[in-house]
Amino acid sequence: MAHKLALIGFGTVGQGLAEILLEKADPLREEEGFEAKIVAISDMMKGSLYHPDGLDIRKVLEVTRETGSLEGYPDTPGLIRGWDSFETIEKSNADTIVEITFTDIKTGQPAIDHCRAAFENGKNVVTSNKGPVALAYPELSELARKNGVKWGIEGSVMSGTPALRIPRVSLAGNEIKEIRGILNGTTNYILTKMEEGLTYDEALKKAQELGYAEADPTSDVEGYDALYKVVILANVIMKASLTRDQVERKGITGLTPDDIEQARQEGKRWKLLAEIKKGQDGVRASVSPVKIPLDDPLAGVTDATNAVTYVCDLAGPVTLVGAGAGRTETGFSLLIDLINIERGHL
Amino acid sequence: MAHKLALIGFGTVGQGLAEILLEKADPLREEEGFEAKIVAISDMMKGSLYHPDGLDIRKVLEVTRETGSLEGYPDTPGLIRGWDSFETIEKSNADTIVEITFTDIKTGQPAIDHCRAAFENGKNVVTSNKGPVALAYPELSELARKNGVKWGIEGSVMSGTPALRIPRVSLAGNEIKEIRGILNGTTNYILTKMEEGLTYDEALKKAQELGYAEADPTSDVEGYDALYKVVILANVIMKASLTRDQVERKGITGLTPDDIEQARQEGKRWKLLAEIKKGQDGVRASVSPVKIPLDDPLAGVTDATNAVTYVCDLAGPVTLVGAGAGRTETGFSLLIDLINIERGHL
Repeated sequence: MAHKLALIGFGTVGQGLAEILLEKADPLREEEGFEAKIVAISDMMKGSLYHPDGLDIRKVLEVTRETGSLEGYPDTPGLIRGWDSFETIEKSNADTIVEITFTDIKTGQPAIDHCRAAFENGKNVVTSNKGPVALAYPELSELARKNGVKWGIEGSVMSGTPALRIPRVSLAGNEIKEIRGILNGTTNYILTKMEEGLTYDEALKKAQELGYAEADPTSDVEGYDALYKVVILANVIMKASLTRDQVERKGITGLTPDDIEQARQEGKRWKLLAEIKKGQDGVRASVSPVKIPLDDPLAGVTDATNAVTYVCDLAGPVTLVGAGAGRTETGFSLLIDLINIERGHL
Repeated sequence: MAHKLALIGFGTVGQGLAEILLEKADPLREEEGFEAKIVAISDMMKGSLYHPDGLDIRKVLEVTRETGSLEGYPDTPGLIRGWDSFETIEKSNADTIVEITFTDIKTGQPAIDHCRAAFENGKNVVTSNKGPVALAYPELSELARKNGVKWGIEGSVMSGTPALRIPRVSLAGNEIKEIRGILNGTTNYILTKMEEGLTYDEALKKAQELGYAEADPTSDVEGYDALYKVVILANVIMKASLTRDQVERKGITGLTPDDIEQARQEGKRWKLLAEIKKGQDGVRASVSPVKIPLDDPLAGVTDATNAVTYVCDLAGPVTLVGAGAGRTETGFSLLIDLINIERGHL
């Protein structure tokens, strides 16, 4: 039976997921036994659609591309328009809520309330939003458990690169004593360009032109984005209960071409490194620019690519390198959680 | 209930697994809900023990370390000695056979016959042996399926680094169009040393001193070891039906210090690269020395470390870097299959 989805938010990531479900419907059914329909979409700006039998994904994507809104979706018997996010979560027949709103990372809202409402209404959630995972993981994972539903969070760190599923599934049985990672693509791109001879300002400008960095780049370059991912990794993988203010943080804005050159002469490279270490006195975490030697697998990670190393007691250090963002990549991060919910493996 | 294991073969890998089961019994039970006992061990050289209630792992390891044999294990009521591998597979009460014999890679024996016997007797198999997976994957996986049992093969490529579980589980839903990897640690160590200024012969000698290379290094340096892993990846991950004679193969013995230096000047590095590509005319695969650019994540993989890149249609290129061998690492590769059998996820 098709897995029924309600999308809360319909920006790039939601459209990315919809495109995948449309274009890969056949192989997903044939090879993974996975079938999904989108029964509802509710977006603050684009409007809202609900049909218990499912929406026509091709038409949804068409009108969104052409008009930027869901208003132009054709009327059909049984179609309901105008439900807000909470009505959609509570009243729709969706099995799973796809929470992909634009969320204020400082408060985690509205994503946290959406997750709560979904769990209390007996619905699973999959999300690529950092907010609810970084700020409310203990509460929300317990609430999901109590209500007998699942919470998929793969996309909250490194988008579709399975940074959370690998330690939880493929490295189960290991004690992970240390996690080190390059968790922000924008700063890694800037550092790569500085190694090619650009100043910080030139590299930032280039990152902004390419859409990697926002007009106000603070969240990336000062390490806040990476900090939230550190909190997620510490709490989800190491079962710590770290809050964001317990993570030391320093950005890359102070790095000069001289610093870059000095590292090169030492056979090293600057990376905005996230470090999480389990010690006698609990879990300690930081985000800061670190010179790392070239024979560390993280040193070879260039441009906007992300990477993470899990230092395991049995398997040794295991490093995963891949995309940290992207329309299709993040769409996939939601899909892989949906497939695993369907398999009963989440 | 404890998962009952029979170990066929008790060399380094088997002892590595036994040590893990002994030393990590508490966290495995508490955190993963996994409990195992070893009911039988049958080794061509060291002898054979069977007790339906389980052997004392600590004593087994002690006598093996002290005497190199299982003969000194104390008699207890119900203990049976002397069963050969097939008697152990057929008559023991094990749920799962751990197939870790010394296997002739040319014929895949005795591992293939051990797997067959286990499946026909309704027992799961976990193995780190390349032989049965490279030479008989279609037949054996079908036989396991027909008998309603599981076949864990994680350790057959990159030991405990989850090279097989990641594409099958965490990247499910992707079409994997290309796989590229450094699948042999010995040759990667030799190439790393040649970059540090050693000749091929000097680097090989060093690899032999460290136990990375055997007295006859042909299997590693001529690319045969990597070739078998290529066959496994192509058949398991890409669902091809490639045989070993269909893989192009060239070793590293022809590389000179001049070649190394020339690559360096081009901003590249020689790697013994395994490549598998899905094309219009099926799956093509090769193992050969290739100069790869420094911004490829595989270029930074040094010493005996292994790595593999999966080029995915949705998640993009995802690279995994980690150990390719080792007592505890390979022991873990068996454990992770056992944990997943127990979870019903294999």
